[in-house]
Amino acid sequence: MAVNLLFPEAAALTPVVGIRLGAACAGIKGRDRKDLLVIALAQHSTVAGVFTRNRFTAAPVTVARAHLANGSCRALVVNSGCANAGTGEQGVARAMQVCEALGKLLGCEASAVLPFSTGVIMEDLPSERIIAALPRCVEGLSETGWLEAAEAIMTTDTVPKAASRVIEIGGHKVTVTGIAKGSGMIRPDMATMLAFVATDATVATNSLQNMIEHASQRSFNCVTVDGDTSTNDSLMLIASGGSSCPEISSTNDDGYASLCDAVTEVCTELAQMVVRDAEGATKFITVRVEAGRDERECRMVAYAIAHSPLVKTAFYASDPNLGRILAAIGYAGIDDLDVTALQVYLGEVLVATGGGRAPGYKEENAQSVMDQQEIVLRVQLNRGRAAVTVWTCDLSHEYVRINSEYRS
Amino acid sequence: MAVNLLFPEAAALTPVVGIRLGAACAGIKGRDRKDLLVIALAQHSTVAGVFTRNRFTAAPVTVARAHLANGSCRALVVNSGCANAGTGEQGVARAMQVCEALGKLLGCEASAVLPFSTGVIMEDLPSERIIAALPRCVEGLSETGWLEAAEAIMTTDTVPKAASRVIEIGGHKVTVTGIAKGSGMIRPDMATMLAFVATDATVATNSLQNMIEHASQRSFNCVTVDGDTSTNDSLMLIASGGSSCPEISSTNDDGYASLCDAVTEVCTELAQMVVRDAEGATKFITVRVEAGRDERECRMVAYAIAHSPLVKTAFYASDPNLGRILAAIGYAGIDDLDVTALQVYLGEVLVATGGGRAPGYKEENAQSVMDQQEIVLRVQLNRGRAAVTVWTCDLSHEYVRINSEYRS
Repeated sequence: MAVNLLFPEAAALTPVVGIRLGAACAGIKGRDRKDLLVIALAQHSTVAGVFTRNRFTAAPVTVARAHLANGSCRALVVNSGCANAGTGEQGVARAMQVCEALGKLLGCEASAVLPFSTGVIMEDLPSERIIAALPRCVEGLSETGWLEAAEAIMTTDTVPKAASRVIEIGGHKVTVTGIAKGSGMIRPDMATMLAFVATDATVATNSLQNMIEHASQRSFNCVTVDGDTSTNDSLMLIASGGSSCPEISSTNDDGYASLCDAVTEVCTELAQMVVRDAEGATKFITVRVEAGRDERECRMVAYAIAHSPLVKTAFYASDPNLGRILAAIGYAGIDDLDVTALQVYLGEVLVATGGGRAPGYKEENAQSVMDQQEIVLRVQLNRGRAAVTVWTCDLSHEYVRINSEYRS
Repeated sequence: MAVNLLFPEAAALTPVVGIRLGAACAGIKGRDRKDLLVIALAQHSTVAGVFTRNRFTAAPVTVARAHLANGSCRALVVNSGCANAGTGEQGVARAMQVCEALGKLLGCEASAVLPFSTGVIMEDLPSERIIAALPRCVEGLSETGWLEAAEAIMTTDTVPKAASRVIEIGGHKVTVTGIAKGSGMIRPDMATMLAFVATDATVATNSLQNMIEHASQRSFNCVTVDGDTSTNDSLMLIASGGSSCPEISSTNDDGYASLCDAVTEVCTELAQMVVRDAEGATKFITVRVEAGRDERECRMVAYAIAHSPLVKTAFYASDPNLGRILAAIGYAGIDDLDVTALQVYLGEVLVATGGGRAPGYKEENAQSVMDQQEIVLRVQLNRGRAAVTVWTCDLSHEYVRINSEYRS
């Protein structure tokens, strides 16, 4: 059911010098499905990350955050099939066991390993099976393992998600490649959005952290499927230093801006892939709110529209039922909003102005926009200069079916 | 599909002395369906109300609010089938025409008439048809018209909603009777929650306003179907003075507390009826959040759970998928929440404690609660003494079907 989302070609994923990936079947998701991934990093790689703000933080997030604060990082280990969330203290202990086992195999401290999990919440992590499968991941480590890696972290995803950009900084080739998983912020048994992006540039940790926060604000934080924020969401950015381009040690350095753009582009492409492959999605919807006083109020309006079950079912039905959009704008929470001053456009069709239906509006014009798979909805608040874009999908029978089926 | 909701018996609805109701077919909803209601009030009746906070306020809400501020009120006029929302200035003009026509028939000022509408958004109000049908409403005015009135304001409701309480104040019989409509905060074409409650007590306007705000906070403001707030939501409380009980002129007066309780009970029963008849509902779910620091944070947690599409589809599937509930608690927005200190109960089954699954938890116990039609979910935050209860329903295939069908 994915909306305009093709299976990625391995050749389109540029290896990142200094980053090796290896996947294996640990038997968590079931036989013959790869569910374990190791990402090994060249020495002196820097790592930055942003994590879920859910207070029910999964155990691996707690551990990864602590290990990241330590500084030196040599490997990431990711399992799918079990989220290790809502598992209390023993969940942390099991995540630590996995870090220790991988540290031994790679000859590094356990604290140099960052663990990640995605899958069923409130189930114990099968750490023994994971530890048993780690040697096979390590044996298979390769710089060309990106597509296989994208497959190993899938849960209910129907298509693996990966993207690359190659740019030049000071005459040196620099690569950015990333993978992501997620198809619903949470799935009954299959929780979480995870994304791992790597570049071979040399970037100081502080600058890398700035870069990933910039990119996440403009990519993963702009998508919504069902408004549910997972316990495990993590986005990691790794800089291996494998490229010969000069080090970027501050946000003012040459190359920071263009690398930041490339990282943001890869993150945006991955985030949009998550929405395109969202549970039950039949349409890819861009909600753009313009001319607001600040980004905060634009975001409130964009999310009120993107989270409304009534708006989402109308898109599913290809029904230009515009009253629902007006109602969502109205309850978005802008207390002094003048609804007579705003305009709503569906594609290029002006549908609402002056507090009501636009003069000359013809339903057949809105209908022809609604019939498409890719729809842009634009709201002009006409009270300032800020703008925000959010990507979402429709709410279909398939979403209810997927999410109401018994965990199997 | 209504959950444990019976068709009300006309005999169970106690007339309110001084309040007469008359309904007719104006041809808005289609032939042979009553869609117009007039409620005529005895002279010197007092009226109070609470209205939607949606910024896309419907035209009748704008007019009703202004007329209510004028003071003297002699009649309410309600149409279903057209919400007169998102209709700009001409929407206000059409609502005024209806008030003027009814004022002439009843011999009162147009400003003593409060208009209400529910139905399709962004369609012009067929005021001519309404005005033509008003004489039939007025001819039929009767104190026993409550059930017919409840039917006239229905849109996608499957069952008319009405409730009565009879109490004694200082040895005098006092009646509270009310009607409501709504089955989804918004429906594609059929918008809005409306409720009208009347008592024959004599109550000063200020005290009446206090009473309706108290009652609405504990009833209609505690229910959610899909989180969409309508453009037309209105709850009105009328005191006719038809009972011989002494006037209640302040909140300290004898009788205020017991009348306020009775009004709150009628409002709660009506509000729960709206959830029981919600679009596609198969379960009635009570979410109770206890031991919070204040009501605000209890409400945040209760609504995070009650609005989560993932929690709602799990209830639909009778799946004790408790990770989804933990995740919703985690993202509710309490920054300093200690998830290891809270408990989650499904019915009487302790499901989560210490940040994870409760020791001794057995899925079959949770399953037997999930299999029921009426479910109580209780979260103990263990950080204070405040508590909040919210009523909601599940998210079913039928909800998507109803809301994605083309407007017909």
